[in-house]
Amino acid sequence: MIRAKQKVAILGATGAVGQTFIRLLAGHPWFEVAELLASERSAGQRYRDVVKWHEGTLPPEVGELAILPADPAHVRSTIAFSAMDSSIAGPIEQAFAKAGKTVLSNSKNHRMDPDVPLVIPEINADHMRLLKKQRSARGWAGVIVTNANCSATVAAMALAPLHQRFGVNRVFISTMQAISGAGYPGVASLDILGNVVPFIADEEEKIEIELKKILGKLDADAITDAGFTVSAHTNRVPVEHGHTVCMSIGLDGSPDVSAVRATLDEWTGAAEVRDLPGAKHRPLVVRDEPDRPQPRRDVDTGDGMTVVVGRVREDAILDVRLVAMGHNTVRGAAGGSILNAELLLSTGAIASA
Amino acid sequence: MIRAKQKVAILGATGAVGQTFIRLLAGHPWFEVAELLASERSAGQRYRDVVKWHEGTLPPEVGELAILPADPAHVRSTIAFSAMDSSIAGPIEQAFAKAGKTVLSNSKNHRMDPDVPLVIPEINADHMRLLKKQRSARGWAGVIVTNANCSATVAAMALAPLHQRFGVNRVFISTMQAISGAGYPGVASLDILGNVVPFIADEEEKIEIELKKILGKLDADAITDAGFTVSAHTNRVPVEHGHTVCMSIGLDGSPDVSAVRATLDEWTGAAEVRDLPGAKHRPLVVRDEPDRPQPRRDVDTGDGMTVVVGRVREDAILDVRLVAMGHNTVRGAAGGSILNAELLLSTGAIASA
Amino acid sequence: MIRAKQKVAILGATGAVGQTFIRLLAGHPWFEVAELLASERSAGQRYRDVVKWHEGTLPPEVGELAILPADPAHVRSTIAFSAMDSSIAGPIEQAFAKAGKTVLSNSKNHRMDPDVPLVIPEINADHMRLLKKQRSARGWAGVIVTNANCSATVAAMALAPLHQRFGVNRVFISTMQAISGAGYPGVASLDILGNVVPFIADEEEKIEIELKKILGKLDADAITDAGFTVSAHTNRVPVEHGHTVCMSIGLDGSPDVSAVRATLDEWTGAAEVRDLPGAKHRPLVVRDEPDRPQPRRDVDTGDGMTVVVGRVREDAILDVRLVAMGHNTVRGAAGGSILNAELLLSTGAIASA
Amino acid sequence: MIRAKQKVAILGATGAVGQTFIRLLAGHPWFEVAELLASERSAGQRYRDVVKWHEGTLPPEVGELAILPADPAHVRSTIAFSAMDSSIAGPIEQAFAKAGKTVLSNSKNHRMDPDVPLVIPEINADHMRLLKKQRSARGWAGVIVTNANCSATVAAMALAPLHQRFGVNRVFISTMQAISGAGYPGVASLDILGNVVPFIADEEEKIEIELKKILGKLDADAITDAGFTVSAHTNRVPVEHGHTVCMSIGLDGSPDVSAVRATLDEWTGAAEVRDLPGAKHRPLVVRDEPDRPQPRRDVDTGDGMTVVVGRVREDAILDVRLVAMGHNTVRGAAGGSILNAELLLSTGAIASA
Repeated sequence: MIRAKQKVAILGATGAVGQTFIRLLAGHPWFEVAELLASERSAGQRYRDVVKWHEGTLPPEVGELAILPADPAHVRSTIAFSAMDSSIAGPIEQAFAKAGKTVLSNSKNHRMDPDVPLVIPEINADHMRLLKKQRSARGWAGVIVTNANCSATVAAMALAPLHQRFGVNRVFISTMQAISGAGYPGVASLDILGNVVPFIADEEEKIEIELKKILGKLDADAITDAGFTVSAHTNRVPVEHGHTVCMSIGLDGSPDVSAVRATLDEWTGAAEVRDLPGAKHRPLVVRDEPDRPQPRRDVDTGDGMTVVVGRVREDAILDVRLVAMGHNTVRGAAGGSILNAELLLSTGAIASA
Repeated sequence: MIRAKQKVAILGATGAVGQTFIRLLAGHPWFEVAELLASERSAGQRYRDVVKWHEGTLPPEVGELAILPADPAHVRSTIAFSAMDSSIAGPIEQAFAKAGKTVLSNSKNHRMDPDVPLVIPEINADHMRLLKKQRSARGWAGVIVTNANCSATVAAMALAPLHQRFGVNRVFISTMQAISGAGYPGVASLDILGNVVPFIADEEEKIEIELKKILGKLDADAITDAGFTVSAHTNRVPVEHGHTVCMSIGLDGSPDVSAVRATLDEWTGAAEVRDLPGAKHRPLVVRDEPDRPQPRRDVDTGDGMTVVVGRVREDAILDVRLVAMGHNTVRGAAGGSILNAELLLSTGAIASA
Repeated sequence: MIRAKQKVAILGATGAVGQTFIRLLAGHPWFEVAELLASERSAGQRYRDVVKWHEGTLPPEVGELAILPADPAHVRSTIAFSAMDSSIAGPIEQAFAKAGKTVLSNSKNHRMDPDVPLVIPEINADHMRLLKKQRSARGWAGVIVTNANCSATVAAMALAPLHQRFGVNRVFISTMQAISGAGYPGVASLDILGNVVPFIADEEEKIEIELKKILGKLDADAITDAGFTVSAHTNRVPVEHGHTVCMSIGLDGSPDVSAVRATLDEWTGAAEVRDLPGAKHRPLVVRDEPDRPQPRRDVDTGDGMTVVVGRVREDAILDVRLVAMGHNTVRGAAGGSILNAELLLSTGAIASA
Repeated sequence: MIRAKQKVAILGATGAVGQTFIRLLAGHPWFEVAELLASERSAGQRYRDVVKWHEGTLPPEVGELAILPADPAHVRSTIAFSAMDSSIAGPIEQAFAKAGKTVLSNSKNHRMDPDVPLVIPEINADHMRLLKKQRSARGWAGVIVTNANCSATVAAMALAPLHQRFGVNRVFISTMQAISGAGYPGVASLDILGNVVPFIADEEEKIEIELKKILGKLDADAITDAGFTVSAHTNRVPVEHGHTVCMSIGLDGSPDVSAVRATLDEWTGAAEVRDLPGAKHRPLVVRDEPDRPQPRRDVDTGDGMTVVVGRVREDAILDVRLVAMGHNTVRGAAGGSILNAELLLSTGAIASA
C-alpha cells in the first residue's frame, strides 16, 4: 500500500523534541526527514553546525540539511511535525495548515480547540474524524492534529482501559517528572540536583483538561468531555527520561482490584493502530514486582512507546491505586506524533506518496 | 528549674538516626550523652573507632565513650533514646522500660500499642497522659514513648491545624522521600541515582494508621483514632534529606483556601511546647512562592524542626491541595524524640536530675 | 568452523557482572549460557527466583535454570566465565582450571600471576601464548585467563596505540569512576549522591601494575613489564556506567599532538581480533568536540565495547593530555572476558563444540 | 580601631556570586551592604522583586534596597565587591576604580594585569603593595584588587605551604568541579545529571597562569611568576558546592611524605590575616581518613573558608600526591573577596569609616 517514503518536515528541529523526532524517524519505513525548519537565526545554516545534538548519533544525511525558515512557502513536504515552543507555535502551525500541510503538533496551542483532535491513537483514533469539521470550519487545505501533554499521555494510557470498561469517575494524580520534559537547556542543574521542585507551570491544568478531552466521546462532530474530576499534583525530580505518575482512581461499580488488573493487562488499544510501524505489541504492560515501574529501568520498554503500570492495589478512599510510567519525549511527545501521522496515512486521511 | 544536665543513653548509637541524636544533643541545655549502646559486636570498643560518622564533626568526648551492650543492667542513665532497627528494638525497649528507664523510641514496634503514646508534642502533647495507664497495665518502673514514622510526621504537622479547626475527613497523600530515611548504607546508589522507586516497604500502612492515632482523641485512658480515611502513595527519590508530601485534603464544612492558609500560618502548636529548647518559634511555616517547599533548599528551616508548607490551593475533588516538606531524620526522627523527652522533663513526668 | 554453540557456565551468576555476562551472551553466535553457579545459599533454586535482575529483560530460558553450587564436579560446560568476588574467587577458579575448564576471570586474584595472561585482545592477544607455560607449570587440564581491572582497561586502550608506536615513558592518571564498578548493592547512595569520593580501595595499585603487564612484552615464556611509570588518582562519582580517565602522557621522542591524534584514530588493534563477534569495527574512537567523551552520552558507543577518546592536546609537563572513557561493566568486565573467550575459540586454543 | 561599619556596594548583585556576597556580609562586623548594582534592566526595582534568591533567607533590609545601575556616579560606598560576568566587568570595574572606589573583583578581566594584585590573603597578602604602582601608573583615585579563579584558589591553598617551604617545581592537577561554579542558571541539568563533562571553558588556562602569579614573588614593584610548570585537567561533576582537586606535586629536594604532611598541617598563613573576621583558625585542614575530603561532607569546614586536604601520599613520578577540596563560591569567590577587603581595611590601605 505504502510505496515510496513520504517526505516530512520538522518544525523546531534544533530543540529537544525536534531532535527526538529525527532520531525516531531514522530508518522509518514510511517517512523520511527531508526538511528541517528552525528560527530565522539558524536559517540557511547546515543542521549539524547549529544543533547541540543529544540523541546519540546524528544521522549524517540529516546533519547535512540546510535549515529552512519556518514559513510554508519554503516547504515541499506535506507532513510537518511540529516541535516548536508554544510561545511561537500557534500562528506558524496555522499558516502551515492553511498552506495545505498536515501538521502534527506537540504544542499546547491548539490542543483544546473544539475542532482539533487531541489523539493518542490506541485510545481515541476515532477522534480524527474531527478533521472533516476542522477543514470545513477553517477553510484550510491542511489540518492540525495534536498530541497530549507528556504527563497527561502517561496517565491517559493507564486510565483508558478502565474508562472504556468501567467508567472513571474521579482521579487523584501525583507526578514525578523527568527533566527532559522541560526541553534543553530547560531545568538548571542548581534547581534540581538532589532536589524536588513541586511545581511545573501550567502542568496541572493541562492534565486536568486534556485527560477529559482524550477520554471524551465524539458525537456527530463534537467531543463531549469525559465526565470525571481530576486533581493533579505535578513535581519535577532529578530523572533524565520517564514521567512517573501515582494515581488513585474511582471507577463506576467499584470493580475489585483483580478485575482492574486484568483489564489493564488485556488492553491492546484501538484495532486500527495495532499494525502501525510505531505501535508496540502491547501499548501497556503490567508489572507485578512491588517496586516497579521505575523510570531509569523501565523507560525504554517497547522502545519508549509502552507505558508500564505497577502496584495495582486497593485504595482506601476511591477504588484502586496504581503507578504508571512512560517515556515523556517518546510516547509523550515525538513518538506519539509519529504514531498519529502513521494512523492518518494508513487510514487514507493523508494521501500516500 | 533544670539544674544539672540529665545524662542520657542512646540505643543503636552507631546507625544513622543514632548519629543524628548525638549531633542534636551536642550542647543541649538539658541533656548530656553519657552512654552509647550498640550491638554485641561493637561493645567494649571506643565509639570513634567503630562508627562511620556522617554528621559533620563528631563531638570528641562522645567519640571517646566505650560502647555498651544493649542491656539495661549496664546503663545508669534514666533516659534512653532508641534508634534501634525494628528487627531488634521490641524486646530491648521493653527490658529498658521494665528496668525503670524512660525510653524514647523511633522504632515502629510499640507505636500502635494502645497504651503507648505516639507523640508529636506540638500536636498531641496531651497523649502523654497514656503513660499512667501504661505503667499500671504493664507494671513497669519506666515507660515507652514513641514518635511517628518520618513521612507520617511531616503529613501530621500540616494536617493538625486543619483537623483541630475544621476536622479532616479524607486525605490523599503522595510522598517523595529522601534516601536518609532508609538509614545507612540503606538505599543502594544503583537503585536510586537518576531514578524514582515507587515503593517503600510498610510505609503506606504506617502513614495510614499512625496519622489517625496522632490526630486521635484521648478520652479517659484510651485514644480514639481520628475518623478520617487516608490513601497513601510512597516513593523514594534521589534527595539526601527532606521528605516532600503532596496532599489533597477533605475538610468538614469545606472552608475556602484562604481560611485554610490562615489556619496553617497562625498555628503555633500546644502551649506547653513553645518554650522547650527544641521547639522553634514556628513549628510550621507557609511559603507563598509557587515552587516551594523544596527539600534541598528548605530542609534546614528551623534547624530541621520546622515543617514548610506551600502551594495551598483548591482541590477539584476534595477541598484543598498543598505540599508539605520536613526533615526526616531531625523532625521525623531524632529531633522529634528529643522534643518528647523535653516535654516529659518540663512537665515533671520524668524527674529532673 | 563454529558449528554448534558452545555451552558455557557463569560463576557468580547473581552479582552485577554475572548479570552483565547473561545479558551480553543472550543471542551470542558462539556461546550459550547453560549453567549458572552461585553461593551454596542459592544452589538448587531457580535463577529467576533468586536474582535481583538489573539488566533489562531477563532471558526467560536463563531465568528457568537451577543454580548450581560453585564446584566443577557439577559442571559440564568446558568454558566458565567467572564474575565471583575476589574474596572467594581464587581457590574456586583454580579448582575449575584443574578440572579441565577454561576459566575467564574478572577477579584480581590471578591477574598478576606470571603464568596467567592478562589480556585485552586488541592489545595483547599474543599473551595467550603464556597458557602453554601455565598448563605445563601447573599440570592443569584447563587454564585461567584474566581480564584487567575496569579503569586499567579504559586507560590501556588509549595507551596501547601510543605505546606500540612511540613508547610510553610516564603516565599521570586521574579517574572518575561509575558506581556500577562497585557491584550491587555496592556504593551506598548516602555516600555518593551529589558527592565525589576520592578513594577506591586498591584501585590505584591495580592500575599501576596491570597497565605495565598488559602493555608488556612476551619473550619466550614470560612477560617483561612495560618500563613506564604510572601515577594514579582514583575517584568515585555519581555516574551509573562509564569510567572517565584523564591522562597526561610522556612519549619517547615527544611526538606532536597531531601525530598522537592520528595514531589513536587509525588504531584497529590486533588483526586476529577484528572479525570476532564481540569486536567492534573500531575499538577506539577519537572525538573532536571540546567536551567529549561524556559517560552518560558516550558509554554505549560500539555497544559498550568501544573506548572513546577526546580532548587530545598538548601537556605542559609531559607530551600529551587526553580523556578516555569506556563502559566499565562491558568493555571493562564481562564484554572483555567474552572477547577473550572468542579469541581462544577462534585460534583453536579451546576446541570448538 | 574599626568604629562605624563601612558601607559597601555589590556589583552584579542578582547573580549567584552576588547573592553569596550578600549572605556572607549579613552581620559582618566591619561591612554593611548599602548599595546593590545590576543591569540596566533591573535598575530601579526592589532587590527582592528581581532576584531569584538561592542562599537561604534573604536579609530583609537588603531585599528592600532599590537596585542601582552599574555606574559609579550613583554609588556612595567607597568599597565595591564585583560579581559581574566577565563579559561586562572590565570597563565597569575600571570606571569604579577611576572614580575612587576600591574594587574587589571576582572576574578574570584584570587578574593578570601586571599592576593588579591577585590575592589570597593567607598566601600573598604582601602582593597588595602592587596597589601603589597601580595608582601611580593608572592615575586612579581607587584601585582594583582581584581574587583567583575558584579551582586555582583551592589548588593554591594546598600548594602555598609546600612552595614556601620546599619550592614546587611541577604540578599535575585534575579537578572535579561543582555546578555552582558556573553560576545560575549555569549548567543545564540535562548536561550533568548522572554525567561528567570533561571540559570547562578557559579553566585549565586560568589555573595554569593564576597559580604562578599567586605564588610568585613581589620584587620592588613587579611580580615574578613562580617558576613551576602546571598541567591541568578540569571536569564538571554533579556536585552542588565544592571543587575537588587531585594533585601530583614535584618539590625541590624531594622531601618525604611525612614532612609534606606536617608542613600542610602546621601552616597558618600570613600573620596579618589571622585575626581578620573572615579568617578561620586554620585556613587548611589535613584529614587522615582514606576517603576524605568529600565535597558534600566537608565543603562547609570553617564556614566554607577552610580548604581540606587528604590522601597525602607518595607519587610514583613526582614527589607527593594529595586531594584538596574547597568551597568554590565562598573560599573561591565571595568569601575570598571579603577577606581581601578586610585585609585592606585592617592594614589601613582603605581608610576606615
